[in-house]
Amino acid sequence: MSKLKESTKITATEPVNLLGVMQPIAGDASFKNLLSMHQLEARDILDYINEAYAAEKLIRDRDSRGASILPHAVMKAVMRQPSTRTGGSCTTAMRKLGGAAELISGMSSSSEAKGETLADSWVAFATQSDILGIRTADDYGAMFAAQVIAQGYERGHLWQLVPVINLGDGRNEHPTQALGDLFTIHKKFKKFDGLTIVFVGDQARYRAHHSLMIGAYKMGMSITAVESPVAKVPQALVDFLGDKLTITDDLDAAMRRADVLYLGRNPDEYDGDDDAELERSQALARDYIQWIVDRQRLQQMSPDSMVLHPRPRRDELQTDVDTDKRMYDVQQMANMIPMRMAIIARHLGKSIINSTK
Amino acid sequence: MSKLKESTKITATEPVNLLGVMQPIAGDASFKNLLSMHQLEARDILDYINEAYAAEKLIRDRDSRGASILPHAVMKAVMRQPSTRTGGSCTTAMRKLGGAAELISGMSSSSEAKGETLADSWVAFATQSDILGIRTADDYGAMFAAQVIAQGYERGHLWQLVPVINLGDGRNEHPTQALGDLFTIHKKFKKFDGLTIVFVGDQARYRAHHSLMIGAYKMGMSITAVESPVAKVPQALVDFLGDKLTITDDLDAAMRRADVLYLGRNPDEYDGDDDAELERSQALARDYIQWIVDRQRLQQMSPDSMVLHPRPRRDELQTDVDTDKRMYDVQQMANMIPMRMAIIARHLGKSIINSTK
Amino acid sequence: MSKLKESTKITATEPVNLLGVMQPIAGDASFKNLLSMHQLEARDILDYINEAYAAEKLIRDRDSRGASILPHAVMKAVMRQPSTRTGGSCTTAMRKLGGAAELISGMSSSSEAKGETLADSWVAFATQSDILGIRTADDYGAMFAAQVIAQGYERGHLWQLVPVINLGDGRNEHPTQALGDLFTIHKKFKKFDGLTIVFVGDQARYRAHHSLMIGAYKMGMSITAVESPVAKVPQALVDFLGDKLTITDDLDAAMRRADVLYLGRNPDEYDGDDDAELERSQALARDYIQWIVDRQRLQQMSPDSMVLHPRPRRDELQTDVDTDKRMYDVQQMANMIPMRMAIIARHLGKSIINSTK
Repeated sequence: MSKLKESTKITATEPVNLLGVMQPIAGDASFKNLLSMHQLEARDILDYINEAYAAEKLIRDRDSRGASILPHAVMKAVMRQPSTRTGGSCTTAMRKLGGAAELISGMSSSSEAKGETLADSWVAFATQSDILGIRTADDYGAMFAAQVIAQGYERGHLWQLVPVINLGDGRNEHPTQALGDLFTIHKKFKKFDGLTIVFVGDQARYRAHHSLMIGAYKMGMSITAVESPVAKVPQALVDFLGDKLTITDDLDAAMRRADVLYLGRNPDEYDGDDDAELERSQALARDYIQWIVDRQRLQQMSPDSMVLHPRPRRDELQTDVDTDKRMYDVQQMANMIPMRMAIIARHLGKSIINSTK
Repeated sequence: MSKLKESTKITATEPVNLLGVMQPIAGDASFKNLLSMHQLEARDILDYINEAYAAEKLIRDRDSRGASILPHAVMKAVMRQPSTRTGGSCTTAMRKLGGAAELISGMSSSSEAKGETLADSWVAFATQSDILGIRTADDYGAMFAAQVIAQGYERGHLWQLVPVINLGDGRNEHPTQALGDLFTIHKKFKKFDGLTIVFVGDQARYRAHHSLMIGAYKMGMSITAVESPVAKVPQALVDFLGDKLTITDDLDAAMRRADVLYLGRNPDEYDGDDDAELERSQALARDYIQWIVDRQRLQQMSPDSMVLHPRPRRDELQTDVDTDKRMYDVQQMANMIPMRMAIIARHLGKSIINSTK
Repeated sequence: MSKLKESTKITATEPVNLLGVMQPIAGDASFKNLLSMHQLEARDILDYINEAYAAEKLIRDRDSRGASILPHAVMKAVMRQPSTRTGGSCTTAMRKLGGAAELISGMSSSSEAKGETLADSWVAFATQSDILGIRTADDYGAMFAAQVIAQGYERGHLWQLVPVINLGDGRNEHPTQALGDLFTIHKKFKKFDGLTIVFVGDQARYRAHHSLMIGAYKMGMSITAVESPVAKVPQALVDFLGDKLTITDDLDAAMRRADVLYLGRNPDEYDGDDDAELERSQALARDYIQWIVDRQRLQQMSPDSMVLHPRPRRDELQTDVDTDKRMYDVQQMANMIPMRMAIIARHLGKSIINSTK
């Protein structure tokens, strides 16, 4: 399990049960946080997926377009890193449940500019929300928020425990994305066991990869990581995945064996003056040139395989693939709506299946 | 009809039916795009207006303030040019129908910054929306979005066709504004036939003028354009309007004959280093000095005439006119709410009239 | 009562009844503005508080989380100064009433950039809203908005009077904050009469202090202002409060007598090149060092007293107080939700008590 980063460590006088906020779901998500895929077992993942099927049925009915399952519920989705897709899919998901989500992009113009600590800000957001979505540039940012909120509740300052949904914390995890991706895989294959998923990209830093690797492991999938020497799967994850993980540098061989090819965006985001980072960025960019997938390269994959990419994409996934039937990256985005409906409903104590039958 | 700009031309390998996304409404707007006033005939315009009357009745009832006609529907209004009024009237209109609209102002902070193409962004927004409102600085920007969405639907990537509502595309058109303006005219005169509308401003570039000229033509109105030599009505529009269009440089004579005077904001927006643009801007500014309308100048208009201005205004319309009973520019803004309700409902397959009787 | 600032003075040709928009509530808030605590008498304040108790009951019921009391109502909350808390609590409050609030932060990117006057902007927002929340850097900014809206209604341009709720106008008032604070005090003490409230901070410029001083006066509380020589209670307020107000520079003595200690944030916001302002800022900062409240200093207060702070806080309120049972600053934020529900409902002619019994 994760340990708390120095910079976000709680310094309160009471002892804080760090793992108390990252409890196992164990069949009941009501008013629990969703911080890490480590909280879930296979049966939990299937619960989310079954709820997502029910959610999808609801929103595809043009006469209803959803249901009032959480009629006056309020989610604040605080995006401390920019987001179009994740934030926008939360607002749509809440609306389809009859609630509302408010997207808060950046906090720099307001409370932070006035000198408020992040801990105070999280408590403030908790006073205005039934559920909080949080994206941070810091690893374990959502965990930190969950801890200060748990603390506020224990002290009697908050009248309710506001579940925290991790919408991406630094280089650590992105569990809602992983659950949506597992839903997309299940929609195609109707199973997980025996499938092979191949990950391509910055294995060290892609939080969507990390969460999906954990999820794929829990569902019995075989995992292959196409790795750059400068962007290796974190050791803790290697240890966790054990013999389910194969590491390779041969993308083409991996593609030929893959049921699911999972590409991450070419980051190309170096802009500082750190020599080691610059070198890493240049080396990774060179590897990405070897990883570009176009329509021709795709043909070596099984006709029954699928390609996923948690958009936005850059040139690592060429647009000439868009008419290939192996491509599910658009459906993958669409599937985030019913999955986030499932997540929000479950963590607020509701079942879409039970509410609509 | 419009042709697609070079810069936004689709380069997909399949043949794209450019006009397929700009189909005639022909009495049924369900799940069609609203890109241009050219899609409408007189009966269609009257259908929107009749729906707007029903919408207005709904929202003026203080006990109901609207109705749940589209209860869980989601509109994303993506404003790639700044907007207070148009965006804000869409969010209010959706709310009054029981749905929700989310205003997305600028995309630069997120997906575009990560290198996503505009085509990919439109598809992403479509996965999260039941209906899309789009404002672009590019001509035909909404048409381009409609095309990539139609493509995504044909490929089976999108499970539904998401109607695209053009909220202003560059210098081309602004059809929802024109429909709202026609509603405002109809509320006063209860007819269109035989009325004369006089347009003042940048005839070359004002999209609201272009759309309303087409709409006025379809409703049998006579159209006068007070024209600057540097800002003439586009030739394609001159050809389309034929003998319904009179061009003049004599504003006062035109005002005396006008039933409706339609002013556009003094643009004064030149800030580049293009000599031709600078010269155009200066010449247009000189003409605007001749076009300033104040309370005194207004008196030459018929007591039963009306003045419209799709705010914001600058000094071309002096504030001393505000107590003159010919002024309908505030009501014009208010009328956009019921008209946008009518548009959204119709393009999502609903009739406000039928839903409330 | 307040007089209108030069810079926001209406220059319309008609006579404007300045006080017409700041009418006494006198038992019925329906479609009136809420601009100043001077509009309220004790019975009005108790009405808001009783409604807030009913609102709190509604939202604490996890099965309902609110009620559809204002089902299609739309609030625009225009924040011309940055706000996380106030804006976000309005959006949540509206949602819990079944309506929707849209937060508009800054107008510089749009209509104002196009040269629109503030008066025109307020009328534009009024055409899209059932109720307007307004925060301005200018004193009397909400009053100015209320006046141009009243004018638009009198002229027949607006079909309804849109109530204006002052969410903070410059250095003048912040009445919704004060009502929420009075609710927090009432929840603890179940009375006001005989209680002593001590204010610490920039007495000259803190609008939350000003509004709460007026409210405390109306409820029969004794008021103590711990004052810096450079930041004194405005003379008009000193005159109004009369012998209910005690001014001191001895914080510790005041704390020992206080039932409620009300701290304001250390502003530390000087960044210009005005020598007098710089000197004031430095002197106030020196006073703030004397006013820092930590856990130890808190112990001299009565065990049954309470500390409030309209967050965000800086170092004037140390985090080691957070486990002291005198602290109510988090609950204070949470209480703003039911109070703003009460305010919005009442000013739109609804009673939460009557709607839910």
